[in-house]
Amino acid sequence: MEVMNPEDIFYMRQAICLAKIAGGQTSPNPMVGAVIVKNGEIVGIGTHLKAGENHAEIHALHMAGKKAIGATLYVTLEPCSHSGKTPPCVDAIIQAGIARVVIAMEDPNPLVSGKGISTLMNHYISVSVGVLEEQAKQLNECYCFSMKTKKPFVCLKTSSTLDGKITDYRKGFCRITSDHVKKEVHELRRKYDAILVGINTIIHDDPLLTVREIPTYTQPIKVILDSNLKIPIESKVFQNEEGKTIIFTTDHASPVKEQALKKKGAKVFRTGKVMNLHKVMKILYSLGVISVLVEGGGNVNFSFLKENLVNKVIIYKKLNLIGGKNAITLIDGEGLKIEDAVQLINPSCEKISVDEIKISGYIDRKDGIFPIEKLEKINENEDVSVGANNEK
Amino acid sequence: MEVMNPEDIFYMRQAICLAKIAGGQTSPNPMVGAVIVKNGEIVGIGTHLKAGENHAEIHALHMAGKKAIGATLYVTLEPCSHSGKTPPCVDAIIQAGIARVVIAMEDPNPLVSGKGISTLMNHYISVSVGVLEEQAKQLNECYCFSMKTKKPFVCLKTSSTLDGKITDYRKGFCRITSDHVKKEVHELRRKYDAILVGINTIIHDDPLLTVREIPTYTQPIKVILDSNLKIPIESKVFQNEEGKTIIFTTDHASPVKEQALKKKGAKVFRTGKVMNLHKVMKILYSLGVISVLVEGGGNVNFSFLKENLVNKVIIYKKLNLIGGKNAITLIDGEGLKIEDAVQLINPSCEKISVDEIKISGYIDRKDGIFPIEKLEKINENEDVSVGANNEK
Repeated sequence: MEVMNPEDIFYMRQAICLAKIAGGQTSPNPMVGAVIVKNGEIVGIGTHLKAGENHAEIHALHMAGKKAIGATLYVTLEPCSHSGKTPPCVDAIIQAGIARVVIAMEDPNPLVSGKGISTLMNHYISVSVGVLEEQAKQLNECYCFSMKTKKPFVCLKTSSTLDGKITDYRKGFCRITSDHVKKEVHELRRKYDAILVGINTIIHDDPLLTVREIPTYTQPIKVILDSNLKIPIESKVFQNEEGKTIIFTTDHASPVKEQALKKKGAKVFRTGKVMNLHKVMKILYSLGVISVLVEGGGNVNFSFLKENLVNKVIIYKKLNLIGGKNAITLIDGEGLKIEDAVQLINPSCEKISVDEIKISGYIDRKDGIFPIEKLEKINENEDVSVGANNEK
Repeated sequence: MEVMNPEDIFYMRQAICLAKIAGGQTSPNPMVGAVIVKNGEIVGIGTHLKAGENHAEIHALHMAGKKAIGATLYVTLEPCSHSGKTPPCVDAIIQAGIARVVIAMEDPNPLVSGKGISTLMNHYISVSVGVLEEQAKQLNECYCFSMKTKKPFVCLKTSSTLDGKITDYRKGFCRITSDHVKKEVHELRRKYDAILVGINTIIHDDPLLTVREIPTYTQPIKVILDSNLKIPIESKVFQNEEGKTIIFTTDHASPVKEQALKKKGAKVFRTGKVMNLHKVMKILYSLGVISVLVEGGGNVNFSFLKENLVNKVIIYKKLNLIGGKNAITLIDGEGLKIEDAVQLINPSCEKISVDEIKISGYIDRKDGIFPIEKLEKINENEDVSVGANNEK
């Protein structure tokens, strides 16, 4: 590992741009970008488009052809050393005659982690690791978290007035934010495997829970928490693609209603006597969901916070005030004591329109890994037990 | 009036700095600063320190002495043309031999408004008006508003969690924000003639309602809304300087308690059968209060909003979350419908510490004047009726 130079940063930034291009269609794989440079000339670029298809490095090597000999490869994630759905990238890199590989971050996947790097070095290829590492980790924050914890990454997104209300005192559906925010929310949904809401959102808002207004390759899975299966059969969530709605309920719910919902194409799971969010997350992960966008009301949002299940928070605030002690706020429920307040880590605040701001940050959910800075520390300590405990 | 040149902006900025120096001790007079420049040399500076004492121009002319002959005077507010507690400044300017006067803004005081300027011009002094006008108006926003409307300027200040809570579910006193914000709040209090709270704040928090932690010349008047005179006689507000606490109550309140409070040095006013905030403001203005900082709880804050009495909003938000449907939010009360939401005008949002943001903005309170941009428009139209309706 060596000191970062401006040239490395320049090309790695381009590789990260390339990675982002396929955002929203690579899951459960990470987004990866690659650039091959020879004598100051870009001779190949690649991005990983979709799980099961070529990795970014392979696309870039194809484009570079013989120009790859003696060239430098910039790649946002450690090249793989194992045969998965595609052969190991390190073999292709070695065979192509690449002289140097610059890597943004090690792959948290225990099947790779460090092995790709050591294989390259064993073949006398010069390797630099850690160029724009922070950005690369943030790019694949869901992948990194779920790969290490075997749980989905959870982002809680909500829109409120400046005084924290998501409805007015009438408690019905309120459109708080502008079209600008609406579009941003669809871009956000596109990045997540699943969107989760509570039954009250379904009853009051009857949302579609789809990505709209922007092009998309897939639609996220619609996840609904509904302890008593009160969901109306005619809800809009059932009016688009089948088999993509998952409803979590409890033992109390009617088996007849369950059958009716299954006929509508929904999957129904029971988490026991009460709604158990940890079980919900476990089941979702087992179904291949590595990231969940929670768009709940005040009570669902509070439950996720209380259960320490939130990795990231994104709050849109319209700069207006409505008041109302009976209005619903973005986090309701029974509430925490002020001394137990959940702190945002690495918060950012930006004005996104003339009268709207966006506040985002991470939460230390206390189950081992994340936020970004926590990942950093683990990498520093090279905790090998993480790999050892995982599937081979 | 001519095009602004960089030199004028440079010296006017210094004049505004000088004006701010006496901030918090000039009320009910405005803050005013003055700079006299001759051949690129600053030959005199002045600031208005206190009502009844010399105006900024006079201090600057004294300092300049004979160097004032042929010099340029920069002053943040139109020089006065009437004899008040001190003689007219325009006479002194003319007598000193000033060749040019650059003025940031016309004086909204109907006794001056435009007359100072025309007097100078009649004496063949070159006059430029409007240099850094916006900044000058904001500097004296309380003075400008109260001078035009004969009502106090009202700033609503509150501190909450990111989800809008000012207490947790236990509803007791909560320290939400950091020492940094605490100091900023004392600086804010120093700028206002009066601090207003509701009886619940007195009962739950028992605040001192003073300026502390920073030097100050005067203490703001403590104003308490207390419909039934429930305020405890031993409250901390009575433990500092006498005669500075004003309690507003209703006809229902006990005359015995009223007498007890008066013995404690408090003034007590009854606004009728119910608490009437418009009457409260009228009485405060008649007592010389031109600016009020409302530091209420959710209900007091909502009442001010509902009654269209708020000019400015300053909200400190700690970037944490506590939830709680029974927690008090920064604006409670019965609430408005979303379509009647009160919009912030010219909002600004800044990160003031690692985990705190400050959001501020103006509100169109619909009684004629303010926010800043509205003032602008009125000046453009030169609505003479404003002056005509006022005292001479």
